[in-house]
Amino acid sequence: MFRSFRSVQQLNCNFLNLQKVQAKPKLLFCTSGMAASGYRIERDTFGELKVPADKYYGAQTVRSTMNFKIGGPSERMPIQVIKAFGILKKAAAEVNKEFGLDPKLAAAIIQAAEEVSAGKLDDHFPLVVWQTGSGTQTNMNVNEVISNRAIEILGGTLGSKDPVHPNDHVNKSQSSNDTFPTAMHIAVATEVHQVLLPGLQTLHSALSAKAEEFKDIIKIGRTHTQDAVPLSLGQEFSGYVQQVKYSIERVKAAMPRVYELAAGGTAVGTGLNTRIGFAEKVASVVASLTGLPFVTAPNKFEALAAHDALVELSGALNTVAVSMMKIANDIRFLGSGPRSGLGELVLPENEPGSSIMPGKVNPTQCEAMTMVAAQVMGNHVAVTVGGSNGHFELNVFKPMIVKNVLNSAQLLGDAAVSFTDNCVVGIQANTDRINKLMSESLMLVTALNPHIGYDKAAAIAKTAHKKGSTLKAVAVELGYLSEEQFDQWVKPSEMLGPK
Amino acid sequence: MFRSFRSVQQLNCNFLNLQKVQAKPKLLFCTSGMAASGYRIERDTFGELKVPADKYYGAQTVRSTMNFKIGGPSERMPIQVIKAFGILKKAAAEVNKEFGLDPKLAAAIIQAAEEVSAGKLDDHFPLVVWQTGSGTQTNMNVNEVISNRAIEILGGTLGSKDPVHPNDHVNKSQSSNDTFPTAMHIAVATEVHQVLLPGLQTLHSALSAKAEEFKDIIKIGRTHTQDAVPLSLGQEFSGYVQQVKYSIERVKAAMPRVYELAAGGTAVGTGLNTRIGFAEKVASVVASLTGLPFVTAPNKFEALAAHDALVELSGALNTVAVSMMKIANDIRFLGSGPRSGLGELVLPENEPGSSIMPGKVNPTQCEAMTMVAAQVMGNHVAVTVGGSNGHFELNVFKPMIVKNVLNSAQLLGDAAVSFTDNCVVGIQANTDRINKLMSESLMLVTALNPHIGYDKAAAIAKTAHKKGSTLKAVAVELGYLSEEQFDQWVKPSEMLGPK
Amino acid sequence: MFRSFRSVQQLNCNFLNLQKVQAKPKLLFCTSGMAASGYRIERDTFGELKVPADKYYGAQTVRSTMNFKIGGPSERMPIQVIKAFGILKKAAAEVNKEFGLDPKLAAAIIQAAEEVSAGKLDDHFPLVVWQTGSGTQTNMNVNEVISNRAIEILGGTLGSKDPVHPNDHVNKSQSSNDTFPTAMHIAVATEVHQVLLPGLQTLHSALSAKAEEFKDIIKIGRTHTQDAVPLSLGQEFSGYVQQVKYSIERVKAAMPRVYELAAGGTAVGTGLNTRIGFAEKVASVVASLTGLPFVTAPNKFEALAAHDALVELSGALNTVAVSMMKIANDIRFLGSGPRSGLGELVLPENEPGSSIMPGKVNPTQCEAMTMVAAQVMGNHVAVTVGGSNGHFELNVFKPMIVKNVLNSAQLLGDAAVSFTDNCVVGIQANTDRINKLMSESLMLVTALNPHIGYDKAAAIAKTAHKKGSTLKAVAVELGYLSEEQFDQWVKPSEMLGPK
Amino acid sequence: MFRSFRSVQQLNCNFLNLQKVQAKPKLLFCTSGMAASGYRIERDTFGELKVPADKYYGAQTVRSTMNFKIGGPSERMPIQVIKAFGILKKAAAEVNKEFGLDPKLAAAIIQAAEEVSAGKLDDHFPLVVWQTGSGTQTNMNVNEVISNRAIEILGGTLGSKDPVHPNDHVNKSQSSNDTFPTAMHIAVATEVHQVLLPGLQTLHSALSAKAEEFKDIIKIGRTHTQDAVPLSLGQEFSGYVQQVKYSIERVKAAMPRVYELAAGGTAVGTGLNTRIGFAEKVASVVASLTGLPFVTAPNKFEALAAHDALVELSGALNTVAVSMMKIANDIRFLGSGPRSGLGELVLPENEPGSSIMPGKVNPTQCEAMTMVAAQVMGNHVAVTVGGSNGHFELNVFKPMIVKNVLNSAQLLGDAAVSFTDNCVVGIQANTDRINKLMSESLMLVTALNPHIGYDKAAAIAKTAHKKGSTLKAVAVELGYLSEEQFDQWVKPSEMLGPK
Repeated sequence: MFRSFRSVQQLNCNFLNLQKVQAKPKLLFCTSGMAASGYRIERDTFGELKVPADKYYGAQTVRSTMNFKIGGPSERMPIQVIKAFGILKKAAAEVNKEFGLDPKLAAAIIQAAEEVSAGKLDDHFPLVVWQTGSGTQTNMNVNEVISNRAIEILGGTLGSKDPVHPNDHVNKSQSSNDTFPTAMHIAVATEVHQVLLPGLQTLHSALSAKAEEFKDIIKIGRTHTQDAVPLSLGQEFSGYVQQVKYSIERVKAAMPRVYELAAGGTAVGTGLNTRIGFAEKVASVVASLTGLPFVTAPNKFEALAAHDALVELSGALNTVAVSMMKIANDIRFLGSGPRSGLGELVLPENEPGSSIMPGKVNPTQCEAMTMVAAQVMGNHVAVTVGGSNGHFELNVFKPMIVKNVLNSAQLLGDAAVSFTDNCVVGIQANTDRINKLMSESLMLVTALNPHIGYDKAAAIAKTAHKKGSTLKAVAVELGYLSEEQFDQWVKPSEMLGPK
Repeated sequence: MFRSFRSVQQLNCNFLNLQKVQAKPKLLFCTSGMAASGYRIERDTFGELKVPADKYYGAQTVRSTMNFKIGGPSERMPIQVIKAFGILKKAAAEVNKEFGLDPKLAAAIIQAAEEVSAGKLDDHFPLVVWQTGSGTQTNMNVNEVISNRAIEILGGTLGSKDPVHPNDHVNKSQSSNDTFPTAMHIAVATEVHQVLLPGLQTLHSALSAKAEEFKDIIKIGRTHTQDAVPLSLGQEFSGYVQQVKYSIERVKAAMPRVYELAAGGTAVGTGLNTRIGFAEKVASVVASLTGLPFVTAPNKFEALAAHDALVELSGALNTVAVSMMKIANDIRFLGSGPRSGLGELVLPENEPGSSIMPGKVNPTQCEAMTMVAAQVMGNHVAVTVGGSNGHFELNVFKPMIVKNVLNSAQLLGDAAVSFTDNCVVGIQANTDRINKLMSESLMLVTALNPHIGYDKAAAIAKTAHKKGSTLKAVAVELGYLSEEQFDQWVKPSEMLGPK
Repeated sequence: MFRSFRSVQQLNCNFLNLQKVQAKPKLLFCTSGMAASGYRIERDTFGELKVPADKYYGAQTVRSTMNFKIGGPSERMPIQVIKAFGILKKAAAEVNKEFGLDPKLAAAIIQAAEEVSAGKLDDHFPLVVWQTGSGTQTNMNVNEVISNRAIEILGGTLGSKDPVHPNDHVNKSQSSNDTFPTAMHIAVATEVHQVLLPGLQTLHSALSAKAEEFKDIIKIGRTHTQDAVPLSLGQEFSGYVQQVKYSIERVKAAMPRVYELAAGGTAVGTGLNTRIGFAEKVASVVASLTGLPFVTAPNKFEALAAHDALVELSGALNTVAVSMMKIANDIRFLGSGPRSGLGELVLPENEPGSSIMPGKVNPTQCEAMTMVAAQVMGNHVAVTVGGSNGHFELNVFKPMIVKNVLNSAQLLGDAAVSFTDNCVVGIQANTDRINKLMSESLMLVTALNPHIGYDKAAAIAKTAHKKGSTLKAVAVELGYLSEEQFDQWVKPSEMLGPK
Repeated sequence: MFRSFRSVQQLNCNFLNLQKVQAKPKLLFCTSGMAASGYRIERDTFGELKVPADKYYGAQTVRSTMNFKIGGPSERMPIQVIKAFGILKKAAAEVNKEFGLDPKLAAAIIQAAEEVSAGKLDDHFPLVVWQTGSGTQTNMNVNEVISNRAIEILGGTLGSKDPVHPNDHVNKSQSSNDTFPTAMHIAVATEVHQVLLPGLQTLHSALSAKAEEFKDIIKIGRTHTQDAVPLSLGQEFSGYVQQVKYSIERVKAAMPRVYELAAGGTAVGTGLNTRIGFAEKVASVVASLTGLPFVTAPNKFEALAAHDALVELSGALNTVAVSMMKIANDIRFLGSGPRSGLGELVLPENEPGSSIMPGKVNPTQCEAMTMVAAQVMGNHVAVTVGGSNGHFELNVFKPMIVKNVLNSAQLLGDAAVSFTDNCVVGIQANTDRINKLMSESLMLVTALNPHIGYDKAAAIAKTAHKKGSTLKAVAVELGYLSEEQFDQWVKPSEMLGPK
């Protein structure tokens, strides 16, 4: 999405005068006059419509923009879905060629589809998520764009549907009902592999390094937010490492069912109007194009009528969010201060924290991460509600579902990197503070239990608490043991594991 | 759990031999022999069924226990719904008498219904929430129990449906489709008024008293969990007071639509088989029986087909839960310690905190409260999903919806009282700690801005932070001001409001 | 956001050479060379940074874009928040002028702020939602843009902070901690009044008209999705009308607390560094600028540390979503067919429904609406989680919360209009189908109960069901009544209400 | 509900006078006088308390009942957790014996623990979920009950803590902080294996049988709830089969991390006060006692501080709920009628559907199932919120989390069996209706595309729709083909797969 945005800025251009190169999308390089005057007439089975002359899309796309004025550009179909469609349409064209599609048409479709998946035609996909629940209009948007761009490549007239017809050729052996879920899975799997998993790996590495770095720093533990027996700061961080490690495993564990593609099911899952072998071949081509282990779904009825696979993945993302919330919360509390907080960690200072309070630095990366976590939890409920409301042969919450799953995957992946780079790697232990809290802790009294018994130990702790004194002073004062004994028995470094 | 339940059935009557007193429910005082031998035959339109002889319910209730073995006794229809049905059936009988129901029958029905609402017949309502989504089986359970109990009062034979028929007399002018939602609203409104609102009021009073008690204690503020400019502890608590005050307002604001009763809509909302005026009269009687301003729903179609009113109330309870989470979290963090936490509050010690760590005291009331808050948020989603899935003339998630709303109201109300009595009223300010943190705070430097400028103030704060020194020492050291000036300008007590 | 998007396309421009008109934002009309070469140096307390020469924002904004690469342009701070900030900054400047701010500076700030709220400077707000949880960076983004634009208006040098300083002048008497929540409330209240409520009103009117239009069409009712006793189609629609009417009431009922503004609380709610009266005056100016009844929040501590008011409103939106789900589901099921569904309604045909099945028309507006409903339910959970996680004097989920509430309000409002215009107003009753189903219905037998008794009526219904025959034929055949009696007693039109 | 509970306490022992049998829990068989007079004094570190003489629990349990009056008996700690504690305490005693615990004490503890896990002491666990968030009080409840019962077995005095001390012996090498999460995992894994998975298997088998039974019944497909191309009823059911198959896989995929036990981590995860090898041995004994592959958690810090494993499992249960909602919704809509619905399936009649409408039968099992699904979705959010709110070394939402996960597992498992037995196995295809809808369908026109082209096919469909005529009649009338051609080309049986 960053890319598409930047491309708008870079390419939006009335001054370029490029020579026509068949392999490059002409409409990207606005031809003079078009944008100003510019409409052509296209038609669908409902009639004629004006289409902006500088766009590759056709009547059905325009019709959707008229019928669904909901939410505006920020609510557009995620660009990852469009790119996934590019991959799918290319794969379908290749397989259709095997099954008899004119190789010349196939080649043009493939070239146009590649441009779609490369993000070269992003401006030609204006539809919002809030359209038909099958994503039919986005499938047609893709068909129209590829058709017109292929027509252009082949020297034809935009909007003529000749020689490349959006339905008969680009959508051949396909239906919105199987292509859209296929694109959903391609888009999500790609986002998971390109953004989410690398992000989590980055975070995992950084936390592991910190756990190692901090392994000899002994600190007070806290349970119920109250002082407890000690552990090492490395042990504390090892818990976070484990959470992120499992986050990665959880996401991966949900992927096998995401790798299953609906393509070949066509309208209701039967595969009507496809050829035997089409489904398997398309999945195979998509797998080789993406490098991901896509296979054809073993049951197409389920693959169209339900999106349990994405609900499941969303559940994994929800668990990741839960882990992130815990880790980010701990880090901000452990780094709270500088004077009146726990102050055990020093977090990197990335920006001014306050316009009113000089020197204030805030755990802003933790805040971004926890906001992302909350969003992912919300997205998950939207996905759950949508996933549960399919009826008969088709679930019609598809665009909403994929939007939320992609959003969760992207936000978690991006936030993991941001959190790592701008916070985790720069975390320092405030050892002075850690040691001070450690030495003052009343819970070290626990180490005396085996020597003087629970009751006397309790008396020491309670007296020290009341007096605001140290354990050692009170212990000696009460005559329960000598200073030497105290020093010998109360060794935090020997309280970090079983014996 | 089933086990303990069965024991109730088995044990509650093997030894008593009480004389027959017409006005008292006989089956509560098990007649000899019944439990041992004990079945009678009842029938519904599906055939004959054995009914435990010591129960007032009939065939349809038994049939439901056979068909819905889901979850066991802890999943029973909330007793509040049963009691609400008692109120409704009494009201209906009174109005039916006006419209011609035999006064003798009406009197017996009214007496039996009163026993239901008084909780005298609780053991006769074994059905679980997970039954038909209209609650029909619970309505029939109530009809059967009242019918048999009324028959008993009138000297008839249990199960004979004579002279009091469960459908023709007890359910007269009613349908499950309008009685169950009516009972839902009565139960919820009652729970709100008897448990939730008093609980919140209790909490509000206690927090208000603390805000007053703490009004002169100046402490460091914390934003982003980091040190910030000061406020009084009373001001801090006043925020909680406001949240609870608004909690009460929010709940009350949702009640008008809960006071609307579906009774009189019968099967689909038209009121078929009722009499003109029945709906209004029933609502009026229910209002006088409960002391709550119930009215007849202006649109019965909405009242049967949707439960938006309870979704709305659940939204208010969700907001209350959000407030409770904030307050309880703050209190446990402010009370964290005793040595290594923030330590500004001292929370009451209610129970031993640890078997391993002597003297450990935990903020357990905060924990119960935050767990309740999480549950209410979850309940709210269940209610939302159920509320959204009604179809045509009837929403069939009724038992699930009412269970969750009642649970939320009860848990919040109970937890508010528990939290108040066992935590809030006993909270003490740790003024030594508060003053120490206050005096060490670097953010007091903010007060110097008007005198020496933001840049010099920042330099002081940053230097003090680096050196671990005090603001005053550094300020003087840097030559920006004198000790006297510092004391004059940096007065936390003058930083608590606008000028 | 439509605007900002389009403006990127239209305005991105290296060739314009406009004469300097003080009242118009110069940077909108890119001066030659700037975009190409184009950086100036700005600084904050963390050091120097390159700022694009064609942007009004400064160092802190750039720093945020570097530190928070999360989600891309579609995840930007909602433009409604930016516009609300424009209103707030204008109001603050006006009040600050009263309290002594140089009128010349105030005038320039006011003019710049007006441009912000008018959407003229949308391109200068690149920050994403996933930043610091207080929204500080967006507040500073606004301060920087207004400062630089005001400097430009006054003939100064961009980035010089002279004569208009972003903190000292634009942010005067303010803190991010009170301005951001103020902007949240202004943005949300405005969206509710400009988009949501008008949308719901539109839907309410259309449904009311349909309820009136359909008032004499008698149809079969359905409970448990099964055939039930009749009602009129108008009665059925009246339930939807009631739901929308209450939707409007629910939203309005939540607004009073949204009208409360935090402005004047500054950093922790005390109002440090403001003047007595500032809070009230700002709220008053905002009220007059927006025409909405904003007031100053009675307790600023609550207003900064909690966002219960928005959680509450989100709960109302969640209830609206529940209503919309019910209505849209009913309409698509009642309109299902054309041959194998319920087929009682004919929905408008807006677009081709299938590339594979000629003549297929789908209830796409219902699908968009139900997807929106699911999204709103998810957004609500995100808001709930964020709202519950505030700590001490500040809730730091602010940007996430406002994003979701705005999104819910906008989607519901837009979808209500789309659903109305493209579906509801064009709904037709398929009276042939309705009458056919009606006349075949077995549930009309209910009308015979008073004449021949429940048992004989049941026998008729069950026999007719088994034989696939009509009630009348079977009734006569069984000898229970004559054809004339049947016609006299079974009159659907007399089953629509109490007697 | 309190009332019924109290009656258990009051009634369960007024008449029995059993001889003392060491191996049997004496208190279950109430000794005379106890209940009447009945208190003994026990003490904890907070002082003395009266304990009911007929209960094995001690002071800390009583204290909890006094401090946490939230929700009543229906809110008790799930009995599955108590039983899991029995298993754990037995395992710990066995391992402690290896490490030197007096074998006589160990034997008594083991016997008492077995009674707990066998459900013989259920009445001795009165605590509610809403207690301390670590579950400490339930751990102490278990320790007290086992201690007192073991004392009784060994002939000692209840409440004397001699010779079996609740902390020193029963809780040896343990802390609430590791035992409670261990019991959570044991309880959940057991429930999954004993209730959930068998339930899903039952449903899977029944649906598979139906898919096979219905494999040759060709019916109309429905997408967007609208008529679409045909599929077989067996194919439609095969989608459900796949969903349930994957439900089972999803649950199983989440279990590995649930099999990880925290035991051995003690207070903060370090294992302080345990012995090397204790953790592994306990997990091994629990595994052999339960027959489930429990292992010791690789990282105890994560195992105490987070409950991601249960959040993950809850996500799987949420996905199962989504699948169940889809299946149950489809079945009730396909079975809707009898006259005015889709009517393709005939569902079993299990109970009278209406007191007002004779012969009405409702899809009540579908309703129970969808209510359960909604509840599970809500439970999942509660678990998510609780899971995300752990701090430092301990998550203190433990009782709430386990309650919800157990509830979800149990409800889904029970509902799957109920739904199978009372609905799925009895589903019949209404072949007359199916064939009628099939033959009337306009979407069969799709088969003509290859022969006469999309446009003519569309014309036929639209004309037939307008006229209410059949495709064949219109096709011949329009002169596009002959009757013979129609019969040859339009064969639904050849539309069920690719070619």
